[in-house]
Amino acid sequence: MQKIDALVFDVFGTVVDWRGSITREGRALGERKNIKFNWARFANAWRAGYAPAMDRVRHGELAWMNIDQLHRLILDELLVKFNIDGLKEEDKDYFNRVWHRLKPWPDSVRGLKRLKKKFVIATLSNGNMSLLTNMAKNAGLPWDCIISAELFHHYKPDPQAYEGAAKMLGFPRERVMLVAAHKDDLRAAQQSGLRAAFVARPKEFPPSKKLDLSPDSSFDYNATSFTDLADQLGV
Amino acid sequence: MQKIDALVFDVFGTVVDWRGSITREGRALGERKNIKFNWARFANAWRAGYAPAMDRVRHGELAWMNIDQLHRLILDELLVKFNIDGLKEEDKDYFNRVWHRLKPWPDSVRGLKRLKKKFVIATLSNGNMSLLTNMAKNAGLPWDCIISAELFHHYKPDPQAYEGAAKMLGFPRERVMLVAAHKDDLRAAQQSGLRAAFVARPKEFPPSKKLDLSPDSSFDYNATSFTDLADQLGV
Repeated sequence: MQKIDALVFDVFGTVVDWRGSITREGRALGERKNIKFNWARFANAWRAGYAPAMDRVRHGELAWMNIDQLHRLILDELLVKFNIDGLKEEDKDYFNRVWHRLKPWPDSVRGLKRLKKKFVIATLSNGNMSLLTNMAKNAGLPWDCIISAELFHHYKPDPQAYEGAAKMLGFPRERVMLVAAHKDDLRAAQQSGLRAAFVARPKEFPPSKKLDLSPDSSFDYNATSFTDLADQLGV
Repeated sequence: MQKIDALVFDVFGTVVDWRGSITREGRALGERKNIKFNWARFANAWRAGYAPAMDRVRHGELAWMNIDQLHRLILDELLVKFNIDGLKEEDKDYFNRVWHRLKPWPDSVRGLKRLKKKFVIATLSNGNMSLLTNMAKNAGLPWDCIISAELFHHYKPDPQAYEGAAKMLGFPRERVMLVAAHKDDLRAAQQSGLRAAFVARPKEFPPSKKLDLSPDSSFDYNATSFTDLADQLGV
């Protein structure tokens, strides 16, 4: 197997637990503002709005907007839909930035520190640069470099995102591997000539959602955590 | 004085010692290949070719080329000019990447680690993303985020570089401060509304070159090292 120089990581769901983090911050916000709501449901709805909003950008229906802006668009729609009142602009702005404060899965930081010894490790996320930078600082994620779809004005799974990341890191595509919990993301990376490592994240979505967590031999690696991936990669 | 959120750093000369690093690697190359040359002179000539080469890009005479490409252009010219023979393509490619392996000034890593506790710290260099990423990994520079003029296709001192960096970090320009050893870089940052901290690096150039190292009250801070700057910023 050819040498791998760099690992690029999907972030939401792969490195950090958006569902748990948003549910917790939603509950804290609800208590502060005396708003009764099922914040786990809110987290799921917020995340569910993300792919359709991005697709509107990907297909040219909306001009380029970064993820902070898309998250805010969805947040404002959900507050209306769920009849949640009483939030001032500063509350909404702060809550919108919960995505900058998402907490990593228990193995993420430990696994990344090991992987960093052998590989260049970078994000390859649809999250914007400032979101990913603040998240890394909050959570202690030891990236060598932060790469966002924002740099290419093309959201994953557009090929420009995968190809742009490899080019920016200065490595041939076949020596860059995407690490992700989402098989469609990995397949798009492979289409662009990158390698693919699947990491199962069974808690990303609520138990009601049927997830395909099975290893897939079309990927270069299948792992159950970043530390498992580090074991398999010999670091 | 208004709050500062982020420090962005010029890199060549401010964070790392290009002259010492290139001289040392040149000497090692010369011994390996039995080439007699004054490698300190080579380092100075290589660096001196950089601003004119960038200006050709800035003024539209050359299409966008990144710094690896510009360094290689200059390297090839110097090898002819100085009658240096006997280097294979792989030797030239490796020597060209000496810029990825430049060593930090003695206070750089220590100072950055302190400054990182209070501020977002990022590069703002004309060096390309892969160069800066590899340099950080080699030298242990603890950046929160790597930002390069390459992202904007505008080299400093074009305003797009300073303004683009602040926007990418998500902060108003007046809450972002450039840290640099070069007063022209700092003045251009100020023109774009950023703050400015001068750090004197008396050993960047050979003693024969007259440098203006004096503090200048038009800058927000004047420091003698990154640790001095950390002291002044209260971290």
